[in-house]
Amino acid sequence: MSQKKVAGPEIERLIQLLAKLPGLGPRSARRAALHLIKKKDQLLVPLAEAMGVAVDRIGICSICGTVDTSDPCAICADPRRDETVLVVVEDVADLWALERAGAINARYHVLGGTLSPLDGIGPEDLNIAGLIARCEAGGITEVILAINATVEGQTTAHYVMDQLSHLDVNVTRLAHGVPVGGELDYLDEGTLAQALKARTRF
Amino acid sequence: MSQKKVAGPEIERLIQLLAKLPGLGPRSARRAALHLIKKKDQLLVPLAEAMGVAVDRIGICSICGTVDTSDPCAICADPRRDETVLVVVEDVADLWALERAGAINARYHVLGGTLSPLDGIGPEDLNIAGLIARCEAGGITEVILAINATVEGQTTAHYVMDQLSHLDVNVTRLAHGVPVGGELDYLDEGTLAQALKARTRF
Repeated sequence: MSQKKVAGPEIERLIQLLAKLPGLGPRSARRAALHLIKKKDQLLVPLAEAMGVAVDRIGICSICGTVDTSDPCAICADPRRDETVLVVVEDVADLWALERAGAINARYHVLGGTLSPLDGIGPEDLNIAGLIARCEAGGITEVILAINATVEGQTTAHYVMDQLSHLDVNVTRLAHGVPVGGELDYLDEGTLAQALKARTRF
Repeated sequence: MSQKKVAGPEIERLIQLLAKLPGLGPRSARRAALHLIKKKDQLLVPLAEAMGVAVDRIGICSICGTVDTSDPCAICADPRRDETVLVVVEDVADLWALERAGAINARYHVLGGTLSPLDGIGPEDLNIAGLIARCEAGGITEVILAINATVEGQTTAHYVMDQLSHLDVNVTRLAHGVPVGGELDYLDEGTLAQALKARTRF
């Protein structure tokens, strides 16, 4: 696609920045910019304000590594959360997914990625030292590794488990199995084998 | 998908506003928000600034109806443009597409949509009166209807042509035919028939 500039520099800059968002390419960034300009009062002005607020107020929680407007974050500061269980996730998006599911009322720890030697991402690039420190401080009985079931995720999970092995905490991981609503015909053999192995009484 | 709120109100507002952009749904808006927050200095701060500039400076050209930081816009104000030819487009995005192609050095007129009685969009909702006024003012010899080859677009084109019929201007439209690089096998019969009918000497 042609990248020729056709609008003024201010509009071009807006398009270029929008194109850096995940899910938007050069063409959809132009459409988004035009949509913003046309809906100036309903969308552009409030979005610019919301971004300004985000710039001023959103930061990283020094305890768990999630993003929030307060430090410690709302989850770390919530006294109703179970302090003895720590759910370890790769990314803030995974924390949000678990919170949407509403299946657990514990604290979190965000690693900030997975080990990836090829990309030069080692243990020191992830928030693993912070996790060990939290566990060493005591009070935590279970660490749930809610890490993606990818090769990189599982490598990272094994590394984290090793690092925690000298501590008196139970390290668990999410069950493998058939997704709710999933059709067997579309599942890979590995998932089916795990789902059979971990079958439960009806 | 669950719309349960899991992040703080400032982040949720950012996600909700991003989800209103074309091409972004609730899930990709969350990813985009997270990406923005993580890349605060490289992306969130400059994008918030670019939007602020857009809010302050971008408006609609009172002559042609495109968006720009000046009024008249850079194209309407450009003395090197052919003032006798007016290219009529549905939308600013179409104007940008023609400018990227760089195939014509004329002035534009943005209608701002197509006639759509079912959606309650009549001639008074489009910038048609402005087009007639520009043609009546004189100096324009050709009006090129560069309107999408959709049913609504062609209905609009016919209406515009009718409205201009009493004036001494040539009204033309874009040629139909095989797109450059296009394969005949994937083209509809209407396009092929038009391409055959308008065949040219090799």
